[in-house]
This record gives sequence, structure tokens and C-alpha cells, in this order.
Amino acid sequence: MFRHTDYMQFDVKPEKPDPVYARKLQELLGGAFGEMTVTMQYLMQGWNCRMKGKYKDLIMDIATEEIGHVEMIATMVARLLEGAPVTDSTANALGDPVVAAVLGGSDPTQAVFSGGGPRLADSNGVPWNAGYIVHSGNLLADFHANVTAEAQGRVQTARLWHMTDDPGVKDMLRFNLARDTYHQNLWLKAIEELKADGLEGTIAPDDLFDEEFSEHASTLWHLSDGADSDKGGWASGPTPDGKHEFKFLADPQPLGDRQSGPPPDPKLYATYDGAMGTPQKPKFGTEKGVMGKIKDVVDPDPTG
Amino acid sequence: MFRHTDYMQFDVKPEKPDPVYARKLQELLGGAFGEMTVTMQYLMQGWNCRMKGKYKDLIMDIATEEIGHVEMIATMVARLLEGAPVTDSTANALGDPVVAAVLGGSDPTQAVFSGGGPRLADSNGVPWNAGYIVHSGNLLADFHANVTAEAQGRVQTARLWHMTDDPGVKDMLRFNLARDTYHQNLWLKAIEELKADGLEGTIAPDDLFDEEFSEHASTLWHLSDGADSDKGGWASGPTPDGKHEFKFLADPQPLGDRQSGPPPDPKLYATYDGAMGTPQKPKFGTEKGVMGKIKDVVDPDPTG
Amino acid sequence: MFRHTDYMQFDVKPEKPDPVYARKLQELLGGAFGEMTVTMQYLMQGWNCRMKGKYKDLIMDIATEEIGHVEMIATMVARLLEGAPVTDSTANALGDPVVAAVLGGSDPTQAVFSGGGPRLADSNGVPWNAGYIVHSGNLLADFHANVTAEAQGRVQTARLWHMTDDPGVKDMLRFNLARDTYHQNLWLKAIEELKADGLEGTIAPDDLFDEEFSEHASTLWHLSDGADSDKGGWASGPTPDGKHEFKFLADPQPLGDRQSGPPPDPKLYATYDGAMGTPQKPKFGTEKGVMGKIKDVVDPDPTG
Amino acid sequence: MFRHTDYMQFDVKPEKPDPVYARKLQELLGGAFGEMTVTMQYLMQGWNCRMKGKYKDLIMDIATEEIGHVEMIATMVARLLEGAPVTDSTANALGDPVVAAVLGGSDPTQAVFSGGGPRLADSNGVPWNAGYIVHSGNLLADFHANVTAEAQGRVQTARLWHMTDDPGVKDMLRFNLARDTYHQNLWLKAIEELKADGLEGTIAPDDLFDEEFSEHASTLWHLSDGADSDKGGWASGPTPDGKHEFKFLADPQPLGDRQSGPPPDPKLYATYDGAMGTPQKPKFGTEKGVMGKIKDVVDPDPTG
Amino acid sequence: MFRHTDYMQFDVKPEKPDPVYARKLQELLGGAFGEMTVTMQYLMQGWNCRMKGKYKDLIMDIATEEIGHVEMIATMVARLLEGAPVTDSTANALGDPVVAAVLGGSDPTQAVFSGGGPRLADSNGVPWNAGYIVHSGNLLADFHANVTAEAQGRVQTARLWHMTDDPGVKDMLRFNLARDTYHQNLWLKAIEELKADGLEGTIAPDDLFDEEFSEHASTLWHLSDGADSDKGGWASGPTPDGKHEFKFLADPQPLGDRQSGPPPDPKLYATYDGAMGTPQKPKFGTEKGVMGKIKDVVDPDPTG
Amino acid sequence: MFRHTDYMQFDVKPEKPDPVYARKLQELLGGAFGEMTVTMQYLMQGWNCRMKGKYKDLIMDIATEEIGHVEMIATMVARLLEGAPVTDSTANALGDPVVAAVLGGSDPTQAVFSGGGPRLADSNGVPWNAGYIVHSGNLLADFHANVTAEAQGRVQTARLWHMTDDPGVKDMLRFNLARDTYHQNLWLKAIEELKADGLEGTIAPDDLFDEEFSEHASTLWHLSDGADSDKGGWASGPTPDGKHEFKFLADPQPLGDRQSGPPPDPKLYATYDGAMGTPQKPKFGTEKGVMGKIKDVVDPDPTG
Repeated sequence: MFRHTDYMQFDVKPEKPDPVYARKLQELLGGAFGEMTVTMQYLMQGWNCRMKGKYKDLIMDIATEEIGHVEMIATMVARLLEGAPVTDSTANALGDPVVAAVLGGSDPTQAVFSGGGPRLADSNGVPWNAGYIVHSGNLLADFHANVTAEAQGRVQTARLWHMTDDPGVKDMLRFNLARDTYHQNLWLKAIEELKADGLEGTIAPDDLFDEEFSEHASTLWHLSDGADSDKGGWASGPTPDGKHEFKFLADPQPLGDRQSGPPPDPKLYATYDGAMGTPQKPKFGTEKGVMGKIKDVVDPDPTG
Repeated sequence: MFRHTDYMQFDVKPEKPDPVYARKLQELLGGAFGEMTVTMQYLMQGWNCRMKGKYKDLIMDIATEEIGHVEMIATMVARLLEGAPVTDSTANALGDPVVAAVLGGSDPTQAVFSGGGPRLADSNGVPWNAGYIVHSGNLLADFHANVTAEAQGRVQTARLWHMTDDPGVKDMLRFNLARDTYHQNLWLKAIEELKADGLEGTIAPDDLFDEEFSEHASTLWHLSDGADSDKGGWASGPTPDGKHEFKFLADPQPLGDRQSGPPPDPKLYATYDGAMGTPQKPKFGTEKGVMGKIKDVVDPDPTG
Repeated sequence: MFRHTDYMQFDVKPEKPDPVYARKLQELLGGAFGEMTVTMQYLMQGWNCRMKGKYKDLIMDIATEEIGHVEMIATMVARLLEGAPVTDSTANALGDPVVAAVLGGSDPTQAVFSGGGPRLADSNGVPWNAGYIVHSGNLLADFHANVTAEAQGRVQTARLWHMTDDPGVKDMLRFNLARDTYHQNLWLKAIEELKADGLEGTIAPDDLFDEEFSEHASTLWHLSDGADSDKGGWASGPTPDGKHEFKFLADPQPLGDRQSGPPPDPKLYATYDGAMGTPQKPKFGTEKGVMGKIKDVVDPDPTG
Repeated sequence: MFRHTDYMQFDVKPEKPDPVYARKLQELLGGAFGEMTVTMQYLMQGWNCRMKGKYKDLIMDIATEEIGHVEMIATMVARLLEGAPVTDSTANALGDPVVAAVLGGSDPTQAVFSGGGPRLADSNGVPWNAGYIVHSGNLLADFHANVTAEAQGRVQTARLWHMTDDPGVKDMLRFNLARDTYHQNLWLKAIEELKADGLEGTIAPDDLFDEEFSEHASTLWHLSDGADSDKGGWASGPTPDGKHEFKFLADPQPLGDRQSGPPPDPKLYATYDGAMGTPQKPKFGTEKGVMGKIKDVVDPDPTG
Repeated sequence: MFRHTDYMQFDVKPEKPDPVYARKLQELLGGAFGEMTVTMQYLMQGWNCRMKGKYKDLIMDIATEEIGHVEMIATMVARLLEGAPVTDSTANALGDPVVAAVLGGSDPTQAVFSGGGPRLADSNGVPWNAGYIVHSGNLLADFHANVTAEAQGRVQTARLWHMTDDPGVKDMLRFNLARDTYHQNLWLKAIEELKADGLEGTIAPDDLFDEEFSEHASTLWHLSDGADSDKGGWASGPTPDGKHEFKFLADPQPLGDRQSGPPPDPKLYATYDGAMGTPQKPKFGTEKGVMGKIKDVVDPDPTG
Repeated sequence: MFRHTDYMQFDVKPEKPDPVYARKLQELLGGAFGEMTVTMQYLMQGWNCRMKGKYKDLIMDIATEEIGHVEMIATMVARLLEGAPVTDSTANALGDPVVAAVLGGSDPTQAVFSGGGPRLADSNGVPWNAGYIVHSGNLLADFHANVTAEAQGRVQTARLWHMTDDPGVKDMLRFNLARDTYHQNLWLKAIEELKADGLEGTIAPDDLFDEEFSEHASTLWHLSDGADSDKGGWASGPTPDGKHEFKFLADPQPLGDRQSGPPPDPKLYATYDGAMGTPQKPKFGTEKGVMGKIKDVVDPDPTG
């Protein structure tokens, strides 16, 4: 259960409205790496966590913080839109090229849909969707996703930092940059701790190494003709997980069979010359369980 | 420019068709962390790379490999669908609960749309979209995204490993698991190398640390009431970037002003009682450049 | 800013897992009228509100409650998935038609993507997106949207009520049904209060009535041939806003001109026989503002 | 079955083209509350209606009208695009800031994709999708959705009204505003009539009130710290449905158990320390029906 | 403007309900090549047509017919869902494997969202979106799209034909198949007529042939290693447009420069070693128009 | 399996950067008919092809070529963005209307998300999705889709041709135009060859003509009131498939029954007055197969 206070985590006080910047800032609200993404990624990870204790509690602390960041960016967008000349007619706007430029750089739905406020969308007006988030339950894989989200988020924030001179906006971004720095450190530390606690290793998931074809677990297939891909540390020497030696395969050849589709069901009307014969049937699991036993008795020929 | 050989990177030879598994395997083809995602993520990163040499060449090697993985999974899905009982009428299907179960576990569009073949979609039939990928040009942030994609991909592959007994399918997955292990090691190594080469640091991007509010760059805000979030290594001690000391803020208070929208433009019909007055106008950049100079001469009162 | 407690708003205690129901329940989590929709609809409305006081405070109270409902449904889905037979191979599953039916009725991404947990998606696995929500700033229009969301949500909850016998699930739904009843009453009351406070009328927005063509503001155009559309209260008598008399137009005729596209730009290659001549140019707003004044001086012929 | 006349429901005659406004007007065509949404919402509701007679006939009358509104807006967008300077090169466009501003405020796909015509998309170019509509079959819930669509639609139309001076465009909007007023009155009246006819009550659906926990059907949980949410009519007094008394819960406490995920399936590789034990199995419905009877005989131990 | 009659274009009378088939049939309603797609593709093409007369009138005839097909399929889906056992609890359903199989093959949103009716979505529940349609204004390109839609639609209908034994459903499909046959013939004929009327040629658009590099307008680049791509009629002989000779390029070599990104803006934090220098500035169109003239006078150094 | 060379298929050398054009060109990269669409459409068609030999080899040749076109457009977009003034603050930008116009015509995500590079999205920033492609396995239907894609693609390329003066950009487009011409000829020829080889006829699929209602396979239903739809070659004379005579139905009447939904399940709460009685149950396929036999013995009354 959540509680809310009207006071924000940090000041959101633009010195003056700037409707062009209000559009750009949408990227931090509803873009792929905006605050909405980290909010829902962390909430779903926290709720999906299968251990009580420090990891789950940590995730929920940060998730709860991030909802407050959505609040901050949404508020900043609204305040930057104060008094925007969006209800000018085109004729009026084009009479003044400065106003015209403002309109050209604005998101029309901020006016028409939201009444001068933010959308839950990116800087092109594409609505946020849950395809942006991940919560696999494997904390190693998920914490890498969290480092990524914070790193991409800080890169985007830094880019937006250079697109404004407004001291109030820059103050808020100073806070956001710092939190993104902290959160990167945090998730990197949490990855270390997962290993120290013996819960995960270097590679996610920490299993099936005996099953995988180990000869394919260390080799760079040189499939593009750039001359330098063997110049990096990934072409020789030990791998970060300490289990393999990096190798470079300069002229890789296909190891597999020839690509083709199977013979088609004629009732599906794939174009077919019959050269591959007729399809085999799938062999279902009728050999096991109560159904198999009954079928053996009642209907011995399952293809009949 | 690309070239293609009909022979696949590795064998794709299911022992027998299995249309139920064919649906599940779609997740590795067109899901958020399937082969299509890594293909386009790496291609766009490679093309967007701003340095010639080992990093760009590496990315293009792996990107080119991944298109071949899309090919392998697409082929496996088609072969698993050979002879699927999809053109049975419902009456026929429900007469045999094994066939009925096959239909219930199948993706109808694999038959109706693709004629017994794969879709470029996830295991629920949601089409792949480019919102899944990232290519920021910042290689540190992007390589973290790549570790994430390979880690999530291997977790999903391992889960699917347990959902089949087919030795041919398992052989292909043995190869995929190995490549996912290798690629995790690879991108982790490349992150190390970026730092060793002095191109990036620990935190992305490696700048604006003097600008950000450093007092907010190291503190865990305890906003959820779980008792253990201060039990981890992230609550005290040095941060991974070596620049801060982790701190724990047990009872954080809001530092910001009170949340509110600005006074609205009456022509936008937001509900308003007038208590906050009328909106101020944005102050545009008319003070600089040729337009400002001209306006000063021709029309000294810009608010007129 | 938000705070979170690990204890949920209400008990989420299924008596036993039920993976088939876990898929259906996704509709209340990430469907168009699930808890995620009301959460973000209300949060965005609250942040976008242009008046301090009771309306804004009310919206934020309910919005904060709804995040807790997302938490409840997400937790219920996870608990219903406990021990689901998702890692059975097809062969094993089809050996037992009960297990086969479970798999056919399951969402594969709950296993492969989330590791046995919820997705932020609907019951078909379509990710939640922000196109489901509205926050216009006009509280009358928005509160109608809120009544709708709660009404549709309660209808869906009632349907799902009949799809389970589990007493623990039914207990949680008893709570959800009650909250949906209450919230419908709440937003209906808030609509009354908006009018009582003189902030809005019956029709949104409460303006431009003098501008609109009043003769078209009350007439039912009978364009489908059902015999009974004039049998309702909407065919005669006063309108709910008290400003019009309902009328019925039994045989409506088009009042407009003939539909056609304008003559095309030849460089856009629309197929065209030239019969409508060449396109006129748009007339931009050059008559006003500093640019117009300058252009008049420097370049008197704007079409040159 | 439908018939079409080339003459439109109302005149669509812009005095002059205005490509910047043509982009904004897309919101009324393919936006979340544009004419496409009401068209398909009403058509699907009408076809899904379970009663012959006045309600179904009414819905089909209005649905059929709305297709004609899609036609009007699509035509207006095309006519506003006549002669737009979209095939100017950038160099030419930037030589004249008025043309440059037009391009900046234009949707490039109106030229490149549609050849100077409308898209079935919103004002940011996001394609219309069916996630915007609802048709539950519960007419009370659906008519509330219809009031919402008309209210939001009229709000957006009113906003767009102020963004043009063109007398022809304004004339068409005068018609649209009037229809939106009428349709709001209409659906409000239809809600009254549903109740008068005894088909629905105030709350949707009109059932399960005995099942829901009535103590939770009337209480405002004060979860945000704004001071005024108890100042409204929703904090005390009778509810609109006449069945409850509004109450205010000033300091709500969680009533539920502690949030957690269940123990995971080890084959799904969620990170887990084993502290919650191993998962229980779901208990399927084997106790009933023919399968249960057969299993009891053939395979008495279902867990074997 | 449109009119509607309650009587459908053809009988929609299933002999008995079949909820499993009701899900599959959704593909013809809201799938990429379902009736909704052709409806909106043809309506938008018709409204976007730039010539009065036979082509426009034809498109509007067919478009109007197709809305009636959406009506037919939507009605068939609803009727197939009559009495579906969707409100059974899982325990009840799994007690009877036939009911269980029905649920596994059903779309849960048809019950929970639509109350036992169709969605405007495909057979996996993915909502229809306007990205499926095209209306370029170039009738040759658009009529090819129409042939495609009817061909793909008839293929899907034929596949679905084999999935039912219901004589009533088959009767409706007999009608749909016939219309798809007719419409394919129709659009093929219309393509012939465009050429006969001298409006379009074989290639869309019928222009810029002198500008394009004609040496690249006829050659098959053999980039995949299949041995037979030169065995077809496309490897030699005249092209269908009569303007070229097909050629086969057995060992194509890249003709272009080396792929690379340009030097980055340092404020965007792309990883960069500086080796490619600093970015050049774009050269805007300042040489032309009133702005250029003014700038020359006021601010002779535009880079200052 | 694929290989890549860093050298591109053709030169990609803009004379100078042009960030406004870089946005427009996105349509050819990630739009519905951009290079990404043909790449994945052809790859999926090739992998899904059910015959070895010339058709499959041809498709793979062209598919492999198209990946190289994605590479070319992505590179061109990046190079056009060199030195774009995207990191100017709004104040600076609006001081110079030329810079302001550039920003208004730019895609903000090209800077904030991609660091000055392309997105895999259209010119409005809508991400590419796999709903744009088709691969039915029926080569006749698919080759029509391919003609369509190349025709629409060439139309869009021709439109973009007129929007730039840059000789380097125009050179690349000269190549693209030529390839689009060639590919249209190619797929048209391949359609002829399918027929010559006896694999497909004129109508897709080449079956069920005896089943379809032939009286409905040739008639134009005149449902819109344009006077000229019977003036085309499609109103009389032989059809392209040589099997029918075109006919014109001037005043078509509905042939079907009255549209209505079936009686609803009361537990789904559709509004219902009971007039149509209670729903019949679906009749499942229990009459056939092993289950039917068993049920007859164990539980002779299936409705019990």
C-alpha cells in the first residue's frame, strides 16, 4: 500500500515557461528510458521477488522513489507549458516567426489532449507501453537491466541538460543526474552482492553450463569484414566468468543444415510443388499418463 | 552490405514436430529479448558507432551473427509446426482431447496468417516492435544494454530448455545457451576495455559530476517500510565508481515544493477557479540573434 | 513523493494456486480497464489539476489507493502461478489432459518472461499502454471518464467473480467489487459537486454554446433503419442540460457539399487527370507581426 | 449493410488551405477521442447489443452518423493541405522562415505516406488503434463511456476552435460542437432511461452487492496528505445510488497480509534462497467429471 | 454520409455455437488482412482520391460494402460465442477435458471485456491498428495494395474454411470467398484500366526514370548462395514494363563507401576517440529569401 | 547464416548535413513501407518458403540486398544529422529563426535517444513493428504484397526526391529509385512465372471455386451514389481470371438476416430484457474419438 505527500522529492521550479523544452522533456517522462519505465520495472521486480529481505526491500525503496520522479517530470512539463501560445491561430503564429517556431517545436496533444499538460508519452507523442520493462525474477539479469535503465536515463538527462539555460530546470536536472549516478552505483553494487551472497554467478542463469556446447561458449565468429575485431581483449585471454578462454574464429563456416521449411499442409495453401513429400505428423505425448493408458485399450491405432 | 548462405550457423533438426512448443519458442524469435531484438539492437549500434576500429568491428560481427539466429529460430518454429492438426474442425479436435489441447496451446496466426510458419511476434502473438531496442551511441550505456539482453535471453532459453524433451531441439538450445554465455562474457569484457582505453568510466556518461548535486549522489532514500534495505553493501562503504560513500537515509523528507499545475489558458477549458491568477507568458529567446536585433528596431514592444 | 508499506490494502490469499485463472486475472492488471489504467489516469489527472483544494486532494487520494490495487492483483497473479506445471515438456503435458488444458489456458510469457509471475499486460499478453488513459484538465470530462473506468472495471470484476470457486480469491474480489461500487458513487457525486460549485455545467466544456449551430444540438438523425430509435426519451422532451428540446429527424438528408480531395501537388504523384486544375497555395499569416512588416519593406511580392 | 452518398452531412469548406492546422486537426480524426473512436465504439456496441429495440436502434443511428464525421474530418484535412509547400527542399524552406515554420508544424507522413492527405492517426502521427474503444455489452457502463467520449471530444473540438480564424473551418466546427453537445445530452438521457426501464441501476453491474464487503463500499481512504479531500460532498451524506453513506477514513491502515511472491519453480531460475520452501502444486479440478472418474479407476495416485 | 439497414449483406447463421472457432474467426475481423483493414483502406483511399468519376465511385462502392462485412464477421463471432462455458471456474472446467479444451482455445477478453462478443482485434487479441492500411493517393500503388489485401484475405478465409464443419458458417464463408475472388479480379482490372486510360504505367510512380541510375534498374544481385535464382524468367529477357532487360549479377561487389557515423556532438555523449575530427555544421538555406537578405545586412557573419 | 562487409551497396555521401531532411528520411527506414519492412517481409517469406529452388533463392537474394538498404538509409540519416544544432537551448534557438525552424522540423529522439543518429522508426518517431509485414507461404499472395511494398516505396522515395537539393542525397535516391523500379518488375515477372509453372493461378488461393457462391463472384454492388462506378471495365466483360463475367448491381438489397447478438450469459452482465430467451449451449465434438467412446460408457448423459 502506498501513501503520498503533495510535497515533491525535490524542487520543480522553472524560472520561466518554455513550451519547446516541454516537448523534449517528455522523453524523460514517457520514453523508453524515462521515469515511468524505471517505476514500473522496479515495482514489478519488487512484487515478483522470491525472497524476503534486503534485495526485495531495496527494490521497493527505489521503486517508490521513482514514482516521485514521474511526479516531478510531469509537474515540470506542465509548468513549462504555462502560457504557451498554443491557442493562436496559424495566421497569428506565422506572423511572428518566434511564435511559429514554438508551435513547430511543440507537441499538439499537450494542448488538445491534456489542456496544457504532460502526456504519458515520449517526446514524439508515442504513448508509453509496458514492452519497455523487464522483471524476470532472476535478479542478476534484472539488475543488469536496472544498470542499463539508469545509464541510458543519465545519458538522456545529460543531453537534455545542454538544451536549456533555465536555472530552475537545471537545478532539477542536477538532482536527477545525481540520482542516476547513485542508482548506477547501487545496482552495480547489488550485482556484486548477489555474487558475494552465493545467489548468482557472473552469467545468468548460473546453470546448464554442463549442458551447453562449451566449444561454442567462447569464440568470436568474425562475420563482418572490419579488420579490428580481434584487437580487443575479447579475442583472447580469460573470460570475466573465469570459466573460458576467449578465442577468435577468423573464417567461420556454417555448422548447420540447409535452411528450409517443412512440407506444408495442403489445406493451408502454401505454394508447393510436392518435391518434399507430405508432412509427418507431430508425435504427441500419448505414451504417458492416464490418457495414454486408456487410448491403448480403447483405440489402439491413434492415427486411425 | 550483406551476403547469405543457405546453410545455417548450427543444426536445426527437431526429432519430431511439436506445435505446442512452436508457440512457446516464438518468445525467442519476436519477444522483447528474442533474437530479433539483439539483431536490430546491435545493427543500429554498429551503424551508429562514432569510432572506426575494434568496437565497431566487434559490434558488427555479433550483429551479423544474430541475424543468423533469427533464421535458426524461425526455421525451428516452422519445422515444429510440420503436420500440426490446425485444419481440424473444432468438432474433430474436441473429439480427441490430445488434439484439443494442442489447439488450445497453439497460436492461431501461425496457421491462418503464416500458413504453418513463424510470426515475427512473441509467444502471445504480439508483433515485434522497435521500442525493444536501444542504441544511444554511448557505448558504456549500450554495452550494459547488451549484457542485459544476453542475460535475459539466456534466462528465457534456459526456461524453454526445460519445456522440451526433443533431442534435436535441445541440441540447438545447447548452442544458443553457449552463445548467450559467450556474449555475456563478451560485453562484460568490452565494458572493462572501454574503461581501460580511457573512453568511458564506471558511470554513463562520464561527465557533469561537478554539476550534479553530489549530496544526492550516494544516498538510499528509505521510502518503503521493509526492514532490511540497509543490510546490503549499498548502504555504506565506497561506491563502485570510487567517488562516493554509500549512505542510508532512514526517514527521508520531501525537499521540494508543493506539486501543482500552473494557471491554465482559459481557451483550453481546464477546470479552474481562478485562484492562482492568470498564466505568465513564456519568455522566448528574442534577446539574441538577428531577429532580436530587428525586432528591437521595428517593434520595440514584443508583448504588443 | 510516495511512501510504501509492504502490507497490502487487503488480503491476497488464494486457497490454492490456479494458473488458468492467473491468466484471466491479468485483465484487471494490465487490461484497458485494469488497475494500471486507473492508477495512471488518476495520477496524471491529479498532477494536471489546476486548482488546489478538495478536487485535487480527492484525486490524489484515490490515485494513491489504486497503485496499491496494482500491487494486490500483481501479487494474486504470482500466487496463483505457484507450482504451475509450465516446465513440463509437451510430451509430458499431453499425457495428462488436465495438465494439457492448464497449458492451453496459460500465458506462456508468465513463465518464460516473468519466471512465474505477472506481466503488465492484459489477459492475451498485450502490454499495457498509455493510450488507455485520459487527463484533459477538464474535470467534468475527466470525472465522466473515471465513472466509466470504475463501471467497466466492476463489470469485468463481476465477470471474473463467476470464474473461480477459490474462497481466497473471492474474498479479494469482494473487496475490489466494493471499492468499484464506492468509486462509481464517488465520481458521480463529484460531478454533482462540480456543478454545485459553479465550476462546470452539464455539458463539457461549458462554453461556445452561442457559437455552435443550435439547430443541430438536439436532433437525432435517423440513419439506420431500426424502427424503434424514436421510442426513447431522447426523441422528444427536454434535454438533461435544460437548454434544448430533443427532436427526431426521420429522414435526414445531407447538408454538405460533395466529398472530394483537392487538386494534388504533382510532385507527390497522386493519380490525377487534371480536371480540378492546379492547387491554390495556402495563405499564411504574413499580414501581421514583425516579419510581415519587414517583408513588406524588403520583399514586397511574397510569391516571388 | 451500409449505403453511402457522396454528399457530406455538413459543409466542409475551408476558406484557404492551412497545413499547420491540418496536422492539429488529425487529433479529431485518429486520436483517442476522435471520430474514428466513436464510430467503432458505437458500431461494436450496436452489433454487440443483446436486445432488439430502441437502445440498439439508437446506437446504430449514432454510429452511422459518426462514420460520416470521419469522412468530414478526413476531407477537411485534405483540403487544408492543398498546395502545402511540402516538396520544397530544406534549403528553400529555411530561406523563408514562414515556410520553415509551416514545415516544422507539419506531419511529414501527410505528404510522404498519403500524398497530401490525412492519416488515420493522431496529431503526432500515432496510428489509431482499437485499444481506444469499449463495448462491454453492459449498456450502463457503455453509455458512461459514450458520455465520456463526447465530452472529451467536445473539449478537444473547443480547443481546436480557438486555433483557427478560418470561417469555413469554424463553420464545420460549429456543427461538430453542436453534435457533441447533443450527443452528451443523448447518452445522459439514455442512462436515465435504462434506470427508468428497470434494466440497470446506478452502479454497473447491478448485482453482487450482497457479496461485496459493504463496509468497504463507502469509505474514502485518505492516502495523500492534501488537507481538503474531506471538504467535498463525497466525504459524508448519502451516495448517489441511495444505498450507502459516504465516510472518510482519515488515517487508513493496511488490512492485508505482507506482499511477497510464492516460492519459485527452480527450473525458471528466479533468484531464490530457499527460505520459503518449495512450491505447492495447484489443485486442479480432477474431482469432478468423467476424467476424474476414469482417473480414479486407472491411476488412483494423481501425483505419481 | 452513410445509411445503415439492420439486414445484413448475407446470412450469418451458424448451426450451433463454437467458441473455439469464434477466436480463430477474429483474424478476419481485426487481423492485418481482416475486414476492418479493407474497410478503412478503401474509405481512406476513396476520400483521398483526387479525381471525380469512375475510380473514386468504384472505391466508395467497395468500401461501403466492406463495412457491411465487418458487421457480418462481428455478428458471426457473437453468435458462435452463445452459451460458451466461459463462466465456469477452472475447477469445473478441468473436470471435463472437453470444456477445458474449449477454454484453452478461447480468447478470455471476448468474455471479460466484451461480455461474450467480438473484439476489434486479431485471433491473438492484438487490437487492430491503422498501421495496417495504405492510401497513398497513387492509385496504381494503392490498387496493388488492394489486390494484396483481397488475396491475403481469401487465403486466410480458405484456411478458416477447413477449420469448421458448421454448414451455416461455411455458407457465410462461401459468400466471403466469392467476394474475395471478385475483388481480386476487380482491382486487377482497375490496374489495367489505369494504364489504358493513360493515368499510370506499369511502375509506380510513372516518373523519374530519367533520373534513376538505369544500370541499376534491371539487375538481380546474387547475394544469397542458392544455386537457382538465375533459373527464373527474371534473370534475362524483357521486363514487364517493356523498358529494360533483366540481368543477373552473379558476384556482386559493394559500390559504396565505407559505412560509418559522422563525428558526434560532444554534448550528446556518444563514445568517441576524436579520430574523425569535429563535426561540420549543416548549411542551411540562408542564401535565399527575405531572411537571407536581412541577415546579410544586419549580421554579415552567420557563424558568429 | 549471413556475412557483412563494411562497404555499402552504394555511396551514401550527402554534400552537407541537413537535420530537417534527416527526419523525413526516417520514413524510408522505419515507416510502413521503408527498408526495414521489405527486409523482414522477404526474410520471413524466404525462410517460410516450402519449395527449394528458384523462388526461394530469388527471395533470399532480394531479402539480403534489403538489409543493405536499411544500412544505407540508417547511415544517411546519421550523416545528415552531423553538427545539428540540437543542443542549443530554446532561448538560443529562438534567437535565430533558421535554427528554430530546424528544431521544429527535427525529431527530438534522434538527439536524446540516439545521440545524433537514426531511430528504427518512421518520420513521426513511431517505432517500426512487425504488423507491417506479411509472409503467408502462398507465393502469389505474397508476391502481390511485394509489388505493393516496392510500388509504395518508390512513390515515397519519389516524393522525398523533391524535398532535397543535395546532390549526394539525390545520387543515393537515384540508386534507390532504380532498385524499386527493378523490384517492381521482378515481382510482377515472378507472378507471371508462378502461373507459367502451374503453381498458382490468377486468384489466390487457386481452390474452393466450386465451393464459393459463384453468383457473388462477379458483381459490383453499387452501395455509394457516385454516378460513374459502372463506367469502368469492371462493370462488364470478362474478368482477368477468365472465369467470370463482370456484372453491375445498380440497386443491391441485403440478402441476409437481421443483425443481432445472441441471448447473453447472465453472469456476464450484458444488459438484457430476456426477450430472446436463454442461450443454447455449444455442441462440442464429443461424438467422435476416444473421449466420446469413454464418456458414452462412463457418463452417458453429457449435460448432467
